[in-house]
Amino acid sequence: MLPISKNEIVTAHRCIGSKIHRTPILTSKYLDGLTNGQLFFKCENFQKTGSFKIRGATNAIMNLGKGALAKGVATHSSGNHAQALAFAALNMQTKATVVMPSSSSAIKKAAVREYGADIIECEPNQASRESTLETFIEKTGATSIHPFNNYDVMTGQATCAKEILEEMSDLDYIVAPVGGGGLLSGTIMSAQYFSTSTKVVAAEPKGAGDAYQSWMHGEIVPIDHPNTIADGLLTTVGDKTFPVIREFVDEILTVSDEEIIQSMKIIWERMKIIIEPSSAVTLAAVLANPIKFSNKKVALILSGGNVDLKKLPF
Amino acid sequence: MLPISKNEIVTAHRCIGSKIHRTPILTSKYLDGLTNGQLFFKCENFQKTGSFKIRGATNAIMNLGKGALAKGVATHSSGNHAQALAFAALNMQTKATVVMPSSSSAIKKAAVREYGADIIECEPNQASRESTLETFIEKTGATSIHPFNNYDVMTGQATCAKEILEEMSDLDYIVAPVGGGGLLSGTIMSAQYFSTSTKVVAAEPKGAGDAYQSWMHGEIVPIDHPNTIADGLLTTVGDKTFPVIREFVDEILTVSDEEIIQSMKIIWERMKIIIEPSSAVTLAAVLANPIKFSNKKVALILSGGNVDLKKLPF
Repeated sequence: MLPISKNEIVTAHRCIGSKIHRTPILTSKYLDGLTNGQLFFKCENFQKTGSFKIRGATNAIMNLGKGALAKGVATHSSGNHAQALAFAALNMQTKATVVMPSSSSAIKKAAVREYGADIIECEPNQASRESTLETFIEKTGATSIHPFNNYDVMTGQATCAKEILEEMSDLDYIVAPVGGGGLLSGTIMSAQYFSTSTKVVAAEPKGAGDAYQSWMHGEIVPIDHPNTIADGLLTTVGDKTFPVIREFVDEILTVSDEEIIQSMKIIWERMKIIIEPSSAVTLAAVLANPIKFSNKKVALILSGGNVDLKKLPF
Repeated sequence: MLPISKNEIVTAHRCIGSKIHRTPILTSKYLDGLTNGQLFFKCENFQKTGSFKIRGATNAIMNLGKGALAKGVATHSSGNHAQALAFAALNMQTKATVVMPSSSSAIKKAAVREYGADIIECEPNQASRESTLETFIEKTGATSIHPFNNYDVMTGQATCAKEILEEMSDLDYIVAPVGGGGLLSGTIMSAQYFSTSTKVVAAEPKGAGDAYQSWMHGEIVPIDHPNTIADGLLTTVGDKTFPVIREFVDEILTVSDEEIIQSMKIIWERMKIIIEPSSAVTLAAVLANPIKFSNKKVALILSGGNVDLKKLPF
């Protein structure tokens, strides 16, 4: 049983359509040859703000009433969700406030400020992030928009796979990265509604393998000290995203950081596009499982393209 | 008076069309805002072999008779023309031999060998390149395909601007990089034939400013020790390309390596695509001349995307 209806995804897509890019689906003969399959790359690295996160953030804000909109939105994030919420808020004339660890890079803070959001700094730990956000919410009445464990956000992320399935028929697999599970659960729901013959596979860094562990054990298993170059995938799946994943994911494939970096390099060099390490887990999973994907038609979601060019892993 | 007819460009495009990519034209709201213009980026970095050079190389080989095809083709090049000629030869079942300086990187040699071409190493200077090639040609009867000073190559390169002008109307400018002038002269000819109201501007690195000097003096002025990060643009314009440039180029704008690197970084970070330094001269020229391009509709040719990720300038 899915927590979101087909109609909710269709409506969300209609509503946010004019606020986001319809990103292209690219192919590479070289990579088809390498995998003996047909690969289709959904390029959310070209999405507004540089990642798919704008889909969920926009949908969540659009579902707020007038009173809530007047009080603004808030979140804690040091990554793509922060930029996405800031940009979506700017787009919908409401105010965004982002709690960011004091250790966040100047580049990331600048990107959030560029879209007109306020930043509140906190200690660089989960407890401080949450308590700082809570205090702000209590004081101002702003609505907290969680980066993934939120049905409106999950509905927004589902529109990415919906676009893939509108353009592609007979797809055997969609491979999506999994961090907190917003994109993965959305992808699963769209596959269930728009192409029941398409299976959804998750790709996860070994160093942040909570989704794999949770799926194996049937309940959420957090990882104590996640460590991976794919810094968008450090978070643990949530109680709204995990039930969808547990019931419907075809498989969760884990890959090493070495495999992630190698796949990132192949995509940069061969496809001439910039993706962040969290995007490269999907190709890494396909390359590490040649039998599963041989002779298959596979869509891979390249989730984002926000990298610090001064800190490249190659 | 142009050395190549409209019909020759149309025919070339029809012939090579199935052997090359029709590359996309991308836009960026951020860059439109930055320049107060409308910019359209023709993405030859996504072209087969990673640069526009495949257009000219393919057209030159297609224009060979059966006898010449049987004897193969040859060139001296350490750059994109080497890969392009190797790939085009592979495509057309003929043999390519490339004279490369012994100092060429292993990566570049591997890319040429990957396409099945033979490599002959020579001393890393122009005299050795030329004499080594000449000796090979005399011995084998192979046809020498010059990287730019060749009418069939120039005709092939002209198809890039033809594609731009088929998709875009009311374009004020096309900005093309200039090294030896193959792409620039081809771009000028296509503009003359397909959109007389569109002016062609050349962008050149200050450290290899022979085209600018030649244009100013009305005759070819070689530069003794060209030095720029845009390593695809080190060569001097040729006696076949320069007359077209001298007569019809709107202006030649020179830019510093610092401006080239800054523009390359902006395109990587904002457009999330990989271009080589030689591609970035076009945006650098537009950014350095804000009054000229303000409120104009401008196409910029991003000529290639072959970079060594281990040697990035930022």
